[in-house]
Amino acid sequence: MIDAYSILEKIRAQKPLIHHLTNWVTIYDCAQVTRTIGALPVMAHAPEEVGQMARSSSALVLNIGTLTREFVDSMIVAGEAANSKRIPVVLDAVGVGATDMRTSEARMLMREIKVDIVKGNAGEIGALAGVETEVRGVESISVKGKPEDIAASFAKRTKSVVVITGKTDVVSDGKRTYKVHNGHELMGKVVGTGCMAASVIAAFAAVEKDYAKAAAAALACFGITGEIAAKDAKGPGTFKEAFFDVLYNLDEKQINEKIKIE
Amino acid sequence: MIDAYSILEKIRAQKPLIHHLTNWVTIYDCAQVTRTIGALPVMAHAPEEVGQMARSSSALVLNIGTLTREFVDSMIVAGEAANSKRIPVVLDAVGVGATDMRTSEARMLMREIKVDIVKGNAGEIGALAGVETEVRGVESISVKGKPEDIAASFAKRTKSVVVITGKTDVVSDGKRTYKVHNGHELMGKVVGTGCMAASVIAAFAAVEKDYAKAAAAALACFGITGEIAAKDAKGPGTFKEAFFDVLYNLDEKQINEKIKIE
Amino acid sequence: MIDAYSILEKIRAQKPLIHHLTNWVTIYDCAQVTRTIGALPVMAHAPEEVGQMARSSSALVLNIGTLTREFVDSMIVAGEAANSKRIPVVLDAVGVGATDMRTSEARMLMREIKVDIVKGNAGEIGALAGVETEVRGVESISVKGKPEDIAASFAKRTKSVVVITGKTDVVSDGKRTYKVHNGHELMGKVVGTGCMAASVIAAFAAVEKDYAKAAAAALACFGITGEIAAKDAKGPGTFKEAFFDVLYNLDEKQINEKIKIE
Repeated sequence: MIDAYSILEKIRAQKPLIHHLTNWVTIYDCAQVTRTIGALPVMAHAPEEVGQMARSSSALVLNIGTLTREFVDSMIVAGEAANSKRIPVVLDAVGVGATDMRTSEARMLMREIKVDIVKGNAGEIGALAGVETEVRGVESISVKGKPEDIAASFAKRTKSVVVITGKTDVVSDGKRTYKVHNGHELMGKVVGTGCMAASVIAAFAAVEKDYAKAAAAALACFGITGEIAAKDAKGPGTFKEAFFDVLYNLDEKQINEKIKIE
Repeated sequence: MIDAYSILEKIRAQKPLIHHLTNWVTIYDCAQVTRTIGALPVMAHAPEEVGQMARSSSALVLNIGTLTREFVDSMIVAGEAANSKRIPVVLDAVGVGATDMRTSEARMLMREIKVDIVKGNAGEIGALAGVETEVRGVESISVKGKPEDIAASFAKRTKSVVVITGKTDVVSDGKRTYKVHNGHELMGKVVGTGCMAASVIAAFAAVEKDYAKAAAAALACFGITGEIAAKDAKGPGTFKEAFFDVLYNLDEKQINEKIKIE
Repeated sequence: MIDAYSILEKIRAQKPLIHHLTNWVTIYDCAQVTRTIGALPVMAHAPEEVGQMARSSSALVLNIGTLTREFVDSMIVAGEAANSKRIPVVLDAVGVGATDMRTSEARMLMREIKVDIVKGNAGEIGALAGVETEVRGVESISVKGKPEDIAASFAKRTKSVVVITGKTDVVSDGKRTYKVHNGHELMGKVVGTGCMAASVIAAFAAVEKDYAKAAAAALACFGITGEIAAKDAKGPGTFKEAFFDVLYNLDEKQINEKIKIE
């Protein structure tokens, strides 16, 4: 049993700095969710400063949602700096499989730096792992195989914790595989929930060195927030507003009553 | 009479992918409105991938709100790819007339690629068409001539559908000119409604090949959403939140009761 | 006694154009807050157009939150254009002290152009002024000395109005030092309030040539908005939504009852 609340408490007490090199679509929401969970966000991507910023952080998020070649070069500089200080690196493989560039750049990132946690939907992770998939834009349309099997085998091969998000989220370090059953369908109606999940995983990994456990706990808390926020939501507008309120106030009782990690 | 609801239903059923090369100010809202209307958004601007992404999409939005020379070069690559597959291209001429660069880059885009629908406020479209105008930032201050005349004559000349937004929106393909009387003044108090309108037009054009009809239907649905969202709004904060809720739930009865296309 | 409301009224009547070269995290909120206060926002950063855009504006905001070398070069072009027309320039020194690049680029900006108002938290302004500080990401962790002393001495040295934000905001032109006691702690839980404050200061400076007075009035109105918005807020989600509603409707009575400038 994972004590997700105690990890959340550590974040709130330690306020870890989470450095992001992320996309321009959801950059605000990634910063806001980081702040709301109790950590400190910083976004910086100039090659001249990312190394120094990463070294002073407690986790690093790399999100290729609006990548360019130069941006990926900055990611490598930041990733190497994080690796050298053993700061956890989370890669959000947004849109891998939709274009050749995304697939090859994401694979290159995983070769050039040590990615501690790699996250995506089934299509994105499948494409990264070389499984037959269809990704349209940033949506997973189809993937050959079960997410838990893809995650476990890709984790074994890469020595990264692999996170596949979906109705059920799967987290595997190659030995253990967690299934997180929390969440609500309205989360899929709000752009940015996927990216925000990576920020939350990074905040959990900043204070909990068992990264599979950290990722599973993060996704459970994130999903529980969605479940509670959905209660009185009339659509994506009210849902998103409530999401930040609920996450800000998320307490031990709510987590322990609702957590569903298998 | 345009059956706007049946086009909206097609979007919700087909979930077309709408590729955007857009500005950094409202990029999130463009993605969110695309998702809320039932389509799938993707934002990608690297020259290495925009062609492939555009070819796998059902519509392309080019928005020059925070243009650079390199960004416009990517737009041309994406636009040519869309043209080659006959995917509709929507150009949002943000700030044309405010600087020489915007005017010349927008004109260059219309020469280099086939723009199926070009959209702007009266000042922006006027400046693009060579009419005497004043544009301050992204605001239309004054324009010589009537929007319906400018739209019709510019449409005839360019063979694009021309959309001029304002209190009354005008849509012309050079033969027919629609006037859309839906909307609410609070829409002008929220940054991004103009950009979001382009995304919604693109989603409609993705499933309805009569682009003038698609644009008029899109603007009517968008304006109706604003009218309903304004009812209980206390300012731009509550209005914007309600806007996404209302659009998400927009139904046949609401559209048919309120639609005002002339 | 500063008549903040009469300055706000001027903004609402004159609708000054506020040109921003700002970061990608809070760019939307900076535009929205500018619009909400009654001014017109424009964001443009291409070196080919920033000079022309700045010359047609009534104030210029430079925010280095996600700086690159090229972006700072555009800032210099815009700043020189603004200087040549005596348009007020506001520099938001985001993250100065966190990396060497930010500190050196911000100092370079202050040498190359006339910055009329420079703003940051205690750590950022301290680092800029050469005082011993600790900045983590964009958070001020510690600073040696009192904000009011740092502000006054840095203002004297640079001939800029210096704004140090915090629980109490400090504004000094080297002769007079204002302390603004308005605000609410929830403002610190929402990403972007710092950046938005710079936009509001710029709008006030666009219509009030006593920049210290303008900045103090702006921060008072901004803080009062936060106080009122916090009343029924359940967290950062509802707070932020209410913030825009309250600012949009802010009236003379609310300001005069709550203003606390010392």
